[in-house]
Amino acid sequence: MIDKEGLSHHISQQYNEELEEVRSHLLAMGGLVEKQVTDAISALIDADTGLATQVREIDDQINQMERNIDEECVRILARRQPAASDLRLIISISKSVIDLERIGDEASKIAKRAIELSEGASDNSKGYVEIRHIGDKVRKMVQEALDAFARFDAQLALTVAQQDKAVDQEYKSALRELMTYMMEDPRSISRVLSVIWVLRSLERIGDHARNIAELVIYLVQGTDVRHIGLTRMEEEVQRGR
Amino acid sequence: MIDKEGLSHHISQQYNEELEEVRSHLLAMGGLVEKQVTDAISALIDADTGLATQVREIDDQINQMERNIDEECVRILARRQPAASDLRLIISISKSVIDLERIGDEASKIAKRAIELSEGASDNSKGYVEIRHIGDKVRKMVQEALDAFARFDAQLALTVAQQDKAVDQEYKSALRELMTYMMEDPRSISRVLSVIWVLRSLERIGDHARNIAELVIYLVQGTDVRHIGLTRMEEEVQRGR
Repeated sequence: MIDKEGLSHHISQQYNEELEEVRSHLLAMGGLVEKQVTDAISALIDADTGLATQVREIDDQINQMERNIDEECVRILARRQPAASDLRLIISISKSVIDLERIGDEASKIAKRAIELSEGASDNSKGYVEIRHIGDKVRKMVQEALDAFARFDAQLALTVAQQDKAVDQEYKSALRELMTYMMEDPRSISRVLSVIWVLRSLERIGDHARNIAELVIYLVQGTDVRHIGLTRMEEEVQRGR
Repeated sequence: MIDKEGLSHHISQQYNEELEEVRSHLLAMGGLVEKQVTDAISALIDADTGLATQVREIDDQINQMERNIDEECVRILARRQPAASDLRLIISISKSVIDLERIGDEASKIAKRAIELSEGASDNSKGYVEIRHIGDKVRKMVQEALDAFARFDAQLALTVAQQDKAVDQEYKSALRELMTYMMEDPRSISRVLSVIWVLRSLERIGDHARNIAELVIYLVQGTDVRHIGLTRMEEEVQRGR
């Protein structure tokens, strides 16, 4: 059983440590990925190509973290043969790591666009308000999904999933606005398309944060809440309290 | 050890059957997903809204398959405590299923665009040649990634990864062409953007096929070939022959 600290206790002190360690590695990777998202958005808004380059360089480090955590999970599966909540922990970690890596990829793509956009007309920042706004929201979603993981908090995970819907709507409305803008000023098309790709990346980051949140609910409650819709997800989480 | 048929043999006949079964479920899901990609592209090119609607409806079935296969994997991990190549099989399956589900999502998105685009001017099929061309390529990648999985064929998996690079380049060149077209004819912007989203989905499908191919190499050879670049991947696969 998961105790108040959320981790089960085994007679083997070393097994306890291994579980604690892989979990802390996931959270460390999550912290770095979250920072990448923040930095990528700042780099874009401030046209800071130095910061953007840094984000792109750090992406390798994130890939390496994914590999290491995967190896740890396989080792624990092979040697410790975890069951019940320990098995759910390992499964959640090995899947969350995929989403974290993809969030890192999206941050890196945003940084690439930041470099492109910094070269263009500096007076044209159409769509930047939306990037800042949606960017803040998805960064917070990533942060809260990781907090939920750290605290085994299904309730907090649920709020992350709830936020995703709002992000999707804001993304769609920003898209419509930018499309109108392109029609009015065709010379802006190339630039606006870059902004659209950034918004798309942010929307994807929100999806990945939601995936992690769903894995937290699975970890804590043992229920698979993917694809069941928000209402049923809310019911499941209430039932598990 | 993996034998010529690629599956290990256990004294427990039932365990053998469980491994064989989850693998065949993955391949069945893969077959359906591949059909979804084919149908989504046909629906778009032939403006066949009936077929597009069908693709969108079948997506639920794919999500359900993902859940079932995941449950099977967890059950095997908990009860059989697989090691070595069996463990790699379960890990590869539980990760491939994520990519297959996402490919299904992208097919469903393409079907949605097919419905949108069928409502517009039927004489404007700018970008459709590229959709057909890149669509054929990524559909083949998905098919070959699944074949490689079925036959434990690392060499074939490698060719899938190699194709992904070509797809990325064709995608970029199609994008540039469509951008020029939008600038020349701003009235087409909304329509061309839909075509761009379809191309983006196809490019993503190629990425997912490549992920599955990398998992096949991991399954067969035990090497993690993600993020190491094509050249090193080729070396690893040659070494494993």
